Amino acid sequence: MSTPPTLTAYLDELQTVVSRALQQSLPEGAAPTLVIDAMQHALMSGGKRLRPCLTLMAAEAVAPLAGLTVPRARLMAIPSACAVEMIHCYSLVHDDLPAMDNDTLRRGQPTTHMVYGDGLAVLAGDGLLTEAFGVLAASPSPVAPPGSPEAPADRRLRVLSVLATAAGAIGMVGGQAIDLRAAGRIPSHPPAQMGERELRDMHARKTGALIRAAAVSGAMIVGVEDAVVAAVDYYAQELGLAFQIIDDVLDVEGSDATLGKTVGKDAAAGKPTYPALHGVTASRQLAAECVDRAKATLHAAGLEGRLTELADWSLARTT
Amino acid sequence: MSTPPTLTAYLDELQTVVSRALQQSLPEGAAPTLVIDAMQHALMSGGKRLRPCLTLMAAEAVAPLAGLTVPRARLMAIPSACAVEMIHCYSLVHDDLPAMDNDTLRRGQPTTHMVYGDGLAVLAGDGLLTEAFGVLAASPSPVAPPGSPEAPADRRLRVLSVLATAAGAIGMVGGQAIDLRAAGRIPSHPPAQMGERELRDMHARKTGALIRAAAVSGAMIVGVEDAVVAAVDYYAQELGLAFQIIDDVLDVEGSDATLGKTVGKDAAAGKPTYPALHGVTASRQLAAECVDRAKATLHAAGLEGRLTELADWSLARTT
Repeated sequence: MSTPPTLTAYLDELQTVVSRALQQSLPEGAAPTLVIDAMQHALMSGGKRLRPCLTLMAAEAVAPLAGLTVPRARLMAIPSACAVEMIHCYSLVHDDLPAMDNDTLRRGQPTTHMVYGDGLAVLAGDGLLTEAFGVLAASPSPVAPPGSPEAPADRRLRVLSVLATAAGAIGMVGGQAIDLRAAGRIPSHPPAQMGERELRDMHARKTGALIRAAAVSGAMIVGVEDAVVAAVDYYAQELGLAFQIIDDVLDVEGSDATLGKTVGKDAAAGKPTYPALHGVTASRQLAAECVDRAKATLHAAGLEGRLTELADWSLARTT
Repeated sequence: MSTPPTLTAYLDELQTVVSRALQQSLPEGAAPTLVIDAMQHALMSGGKRLRPCLTLMAAEAVAPLAGLTVPRARLMAIPSACAVEMIHCYSLVHDDLPAMDNDTLRRGQPTTHMVYGDGLAVLAGDGLLTEAFGVLAASPSPVAPPGSPEAPADRRLRVLSVLATAAGAIGMVGGQAIDLRAAGRIPSHPPAQMGERELRDMHARKTGALIRAAAVSGAMIVGVEDAVVAAVDYYAQELGLAFQIIDDVLDVEGSDATLGKTVGKDAAAGKPTYPALHGVTASRQLAAECVDRAKATLHAAGLEGRLTELADWSLARTT
């Protein structure tokens, strides 16, 4: 019996699957080249692909409960995984705009608006968001590898609905609006002071909602009962919070070269962070508690495996 | 037997139905108030609601072919109609941004970014686009009146796919990118000279695609064979072109007070228009030929009625 790959090797494999599928996601040829170029810049400029990998991992974790083999569950979840990553990339493009966070560097590369101008960057984000729903709704999906099993229409609609809720006014859009206000960037609304509760609410919407929807969509598209989906959701909520806290910690500890983005920017913009509120040691402890709860949920639902390893890795990572 | 209402009265009735449904479209309460306010500003500030009315009209026109009563066909198409209008309104918010067309006035009101700032305007547009897909995917849809029949999941997915294609890189996003380039607003791409062919391509993407998708989604959600959907599609293509040409003509002839927007702006921005290319008389003649083809298609498909009247109205209107 061969040794199973390490978590890192397994994540690399999933990342390759996702990146290859994403190469099929844009309507090249039929659309004007310049907007496809800008969308490609935003979509294919690297990154860990954490969210779509989580979608595939959740699909694989629940596969036995759905009576599916792990490879078929993975194939079935690829359109959902791509949709999740396209939504993530759209949000980065728009968040980086001068009218929002005004970031010039992302993953060590110039941001989309730095290369293509603000107008085309808005459009590239709009396009990615739209095509995200498109790859889920299309039959066959342009991102589905040949011979992939297609989930039934009602399950695809449910996943679409989960992703729209996570991306919309309740979720990411609402979270970014809160962030924008905190930064004093909304003329009609004076900045509101943020304490820990407001900070948690903002992160839950801005980043937590899509991490949860990523995992939920993987479980849901494969077809398992609601209680299993709920367990995956709770796991992802705790995992997402742990990631956020460790991101804040790394933002304080890290360097430009390692993270590929401008360091200490949040603190400079006056946004509260976990280390600023609690210090680095207590923040790491908070993240560890999240991971403990995430792992306990997996254990209770009979879903231990790679998702458990991912939770441990979320604490130990240095980038 | 009572006299049927005039086209204007019928359109007013549909507009009321759409506006009432749209009031249920946003996740108020669960989302931060400030982003809902900005989305409401963009969504509820008037306008003719032409596109969603076209969705309902197409649904009603094909109802007998689908074995449905006209009132049930209308109810079934309301989520599609709302999705169409939300996509339209999102595109107006983003197109009006300083990074795009830099419009300060829309329907006689200050544009969203003038009231809420550029950042929140980007987010309001993002939110409307996202919730558009959300209202179609959710079951029950938040915009469906109580007791509405719900279209089967596979038809809702097909409509979603049609709308995503019309709104995405092939359609509206691509059309706006071409427009932006023509205006010299993309630093990485020098402006390209536009002749009539390029003008037609831009309009087909920027406005034609959603008008076609609006009509197609109404026919498709009710459930008719592909040939009927294709006839509705061709009708809407010709109708959309007629609308565009007459819009250009009115832009030359009109006044700020009647149109509620800055007049002569396209000409001032150096964008070619139909009157600039052909003169007003020949432009009106071109539009009349579109309407003739649209009506002939309806006749051949056995779909004559309100859609025919709408085609005639598209020529005669003064606003």
